[in-house]
Amino acid sequence: MDPAAIGIFDSGLGGLSVLRAVQRAAPGAELLYVADHAHAPYGEQSPQAIKARALALARWLVTQRVQALVVACNTATALAVQALRQELALPVVGIEPAVKPAAERTRSGVIGVLATSAMVASERMARLCDDHARPRGVRVLLQSGTGLVERIEAGDLDGPLTRALVERHVAPLRAAGIDVLVLGCTHYPLIAPTLQEALGAGVQLLDPAEAVARELLRRLGPAGESVIATPAQPAPIRLLTTGDPPAVQQVVNRLWTAEPEVQALKGV
Amino acid sequence: MDPAAIGIFDSGLGGLSVLRAVQRAAPGAELLYVADHAHAPYGEQSPQAIKARALALARWLVTQRVQALVVACNTATALAVQALRQELALPVVGIEPAVKPAAERTRSGVIGVLATSAMVASERMARLCDDHARPRGVRVLLQSGTGLVERIEAGDLDGPLTRALVERHVAPLRAAGIDVLVLGCTHYPLIAPTLQEALGAGVQLLDPAEAVARELLRRLGPAGESVIATPAQPAPIRLLTTGDPPAVQQVVNRLWTAEPEVQALKGV
Repeated sequence: MDPAAIGIFDSGLGGLSVLRAVQRAAPGAELLYVADHAHAPYGEQSPQAIKARALALARWLVTQRVQALVVACNTATALAVQALRQELALPVVGIEPAVKPAAERTRSGVIGVLATSAMVASERMARLCDDHARPRGVRVLLQSGTGLVERIEAGDLDGPLTRALVERHVAPLRAAGIDVLVLGCTHYPLIAPTLQEALGAGVQLLDPAEAVARELLRRLGPAGESVIATPAQPAPIRLLTTGDPPAVQQVVNRLWTAEPEVQALKGV
Repeated sequence: MDPAAIGIFDSGLGGLSVLRAVQRAAPGAELLYVADHAHAPYGEQSPQAIKARALALARWLVTQRVQALVVACNTATALAVQALRQELALPVVGIEPAVKPAAERTRSGVIGVLATSAMVASERMARLCDDHARPRGVRVLLQSGTGLVERIEAGDLDGPLTRALVERHVAPLRAAGIDVLVLGCTHYPLIAPTLQEALGAGVQLLDPAEAVARELLRRLGPAGESVIATPAQPAPIRLLTTGDPPAVQQVVNRLWTAEPEVQALKGV
């Protein structure tokens, strides 16, 4: 029997941070991941263009007999998740910035959200702040992470260019006294150590990937049982890109958790 | 803050099948894995020798400030887990053959247990059969997997020599009409596809690794909360061997889940 399959898509490789969490929650599921490199990055495009891409990718994934769909991109979720749910007869789980948990956790009363320009400008973003931060008297600083997705897609997680960009984006957040930073783009968890270093240890980073994985299991219901069991061998992962596979492979190899280095234990 | 650390040990690399399950259940925990290659395999040694090695490795892991210990070896669990619990003031979780679930699931009334010679001959094994199979009228065939651990440690998961050994060990089980095979050594899940092929699709393989991971979380109690959270970056894994690191590294690289191959998606 083939394992249950779950479809995941993103503009690029940022959704691998979500794939990791899904893989942990559903180790028995085959994961089918599509990176839309031919049309990336999404964050600076028109809402109509992003919605069209999300629908095209989702329709293709449905032809691959996936049992559920994870939109592993905050921007695509904000702009297309409703359309996807209307059109598709399977569970569709999106990801959105963890503004609510951040507003509940902050002690300084000031939180930051780092997201793409399209996400920062979206109605969904405004609604999240209105619903969860304003009623608590929490101030939200919305910061566009312009350029970061491109650095991460180039496999540069902590080089000088990435560090300079991070510093430019977080300086105003740090100055405003945020104590929680919401990672509002699935690419950003991949540079969490660089962000943490720039912000200092006192600022907590929030990544909703794990909540997405839990929500996926809830939506699957009883049909999800087979995916929760740990298989003797890891279930397969298929990675597809609409872009250039060899170039993408190089970055995947850098982002993937490499096998640990074996060290010697002597005298025991 | 350093992540919580969990110590795991085995005679060799078989415990990596347990490490996988622990990593999924506790993605926030640093995992410290010791493979006792200098004294492997355990399965053909005296109970006293195996117990002495388990105590030596556990004592060393305690010096590394682990919060809990997982004995990722059925043989060492059967012979040393009580001594470890008496001596050490931290949670100690062992692994043992899933005879009870097997006896509950079988429809043919005949189950197989594939384990090391020491495990097959252990009092613990006799007690598991007396407690869980005999009262249900379930017949248990105990089969020593002599030679399999060595093949797996050589990185040979499905070559001709491994297949020939598997065929020799499973032939009597198949002939007796088992419908469940208990994997009684943590090395065997690594060759699950080879075993499954030799036994046929009608025989279910039982690996208790996931149950071990759940038991670990229960024993950690509230202290385990930090290990359950998915970190933005994977928590580190340290692999140590009392044997020859370069040789072990080669096998680890073969056993480790490699990064998936990126494929092209066209026309979407």
